[in-house]
Amino acid sequence: MTIDIKISEVGPRDGLQSIQRVMPTEDKKVWLQALFDAGIPEIEVGSFVPASLLPQMADTAEIVRFATGLNGLVVAVLVPNLTGLKNAVEAGAHKVSIPFSMSETHSMKNVRKNHAEMLDEVGRCIGFLQTLPEENRPRFEVGLSTAFGCTLEGPVPEARVIKMAAAVVELGADEVGLSDTTGYGNPQQLKRLAQGIWRACGTEKMSGVHLHNTRGQGLANALMAVELGFTTIDSSLGGIGGCPFAPGASGNIVTEDLVWMLESMGLNTGIDLPKLLATREIVEKALPGEPLYGFLAAAGLPLQSPHDSKHG
Amino acid sequence: MTIDIKISEVGPRDGLQSIQRVMPTEDKKVWLQALFDAGIPEIEVGSFVPASLLPQMADTAEIVRFATGLNGLVVAVLVPNLTGLKNAVEAGAHKVSIPFSMSETHSMKNVRKNHAEMLDEVGRCIGFLQTLPEENRPRFEVGLSTAFGCTLEGPVPEARVIKMAAAVVELGADEVGLSDTTGYGNPQQLKRLAQGIWRACGTEKMSGVHLHNTRGQGLANALMAVELGFTTIDSSLGGIGGCPFAPGASGNIVTEDLVWMLESMGLNTGIDLPKLLATREIVEKALPGEPLYGFLAAAGLPLQSPHDSKHG
Repeated sequence: MTIDIKISEVGPRDGLQSIQRVMPTEDKKVWLQALFDAGIPEIEVGSFVPASLLPQMADTAEIVRFATGLNGLVVAVLVPNLTGLKNAVEAGAHKVSIPFSMSETHSMKNVRKNHAEMLDEVGRCIGFLQTLPEENRPRFEVGLSTAFGCTLEGPVPEARVIKMAAAVVELGADEVGLSDTTGYGNPQQLKRLAQGIWRACGTEKMSGVHLHNTRGQGLANALMAVELGFTTIDSSLGGIGGCPFAPGASGNIVTEDLVWMLESMGLNTGIDLPKLLATREIVEKALPGEPLYGFLAAAGLPLQSPHDSKHG
Repeated sequence: MTIDIKISEVGPRDGLQSIQRVMPTEDKKVWLQALFDAGIPEIEVGSFVPASLLPQMADTAEIVRFATGLNGLVVAVLVPNLTGLKNAVEAGAHKVSIPFSMSETHSMKNVRKNHAEMLDEVGRCIGFLQTLPEENRPRFEVGLSTAFGCTLEGPVPEARVIKMAAAVVELGADEVGLSDTTGYGNPQQLKRLAQGIWRACGTEKMSGVHLHNTRGQGLANALMAVELGFTTIDSSLGGIGGCPFAPGASGNIVTEDLVWMLESMGLNTGIDLPKLLATREIVEKALPGEPLYGFLAAAGLPLQSPHDSKHG
């Protein structure tokens, strides 16, 4: 059966980087294996940042090598710059995202680059990728972070987001991703931004959204994304994660709740929900005491749902 | 400014009836006054059930008399049968809902009536209302509860829900309401049910939904409801409430999160969000230790949102 909506699980990157403790490499592997076995088609497994900044991500190269051994899994990583990209390519990642904060204040605080400097960095990354033989070239996505507003700057003009999306596509990015880093977004805003970016860049240049549930709007925004035609949605198991440099921003969409919404709407995600729910135990065991979120896990699957019978 | 979506606050009924403790009458009045002052246009203030069954609702007649003194507020109550309806009329309620469980098992357990007996009861209620002078006649709504599935029966056939909706409209009900008592619903199911009922009964016979957030789908379903053209959405302050006779069912939509979604989408609810958030303190004080839910209350209003400036 064809997958209608691709879930990109970001817990191992966005989740773990916002937790102080470092998950042991072997636990990460067990978790990735379980996510893969549950049918998750894409995982953002880590980020190539200096271990001095994020010791949680120090083993990303090893994790990428492990994950690329899981046949059919799309292995995504995050990089802040060209150095990170080179490491990602060397490790063999299939997809690389560079976050580009639409709030210049947040960009300065997060990566110490203003918008012009970020565009230069994106250009250098694409220049480097073009020197590689095509079979070694990962898909390169620019994540338009804080696109819905910033906890430091407040509202972010939609025209700016559309302009920056067009600029990085012009530079040669394979794709842009629309990212509600701060959980400020609402469905109408998502619609306006998506339509504006698609108009400026072409619909083939944006297929994914990264939404947060900070103000409870995550699944409503995800529903709008599906209605608009997005085909990839980021989420994290147990809702762990957020951006540690954007104060007050927390709460990815909970993968289990998202999958339940999509599957109950008749959209195929390729994911086995009881198996996915069971992977929560791995995280609970590896990070004891760490809060996991999710309504489906608390309430259980409905009686006699198709997934309930799989469960029994 | 015209109200686009009418929020019907059900906390004082659905919320309080699922909490063991009895909120003192004077606290209820303070709460209702604060909700009214925040701009809530309709409140389900209580239910006319025997005090022996639900002591939390024993003061409903007094509460209705108080609430009808709040100028412009629509005062709604719930009744299980004709006896309750007579009490509601005597107290002066503007709107009366009778829940009619689409799951016969749940109906038997909740009010000890099968579907035929419930239709008889609805008929008797309408017969009674027709004996009243028009100015004393409250609006009479039949709430199609467990319409999305039942924790005792499992799936509920959509054809049955549509048939029962048509039957009570045929009997003379002013309106039916679509109710996801168990939090089983998904947006596609809501769409199918709504379109089926509108086709069978006429669009003027259904304008409201009662959705639960049990599996995290509350706001996604509410978004779909707004897109479909529903104009009244039930919710409860702090998400308190649920149905005490449907095991595992809990979690109304959180009013604050719903209002935030709608207002940020540009839809007017007539509600002052900072004032609404402040009413949580009244409930916290009147019911110390009782958990209140809500993402907006936890995360706060976004920086420089229109509501934030009202706040500051």
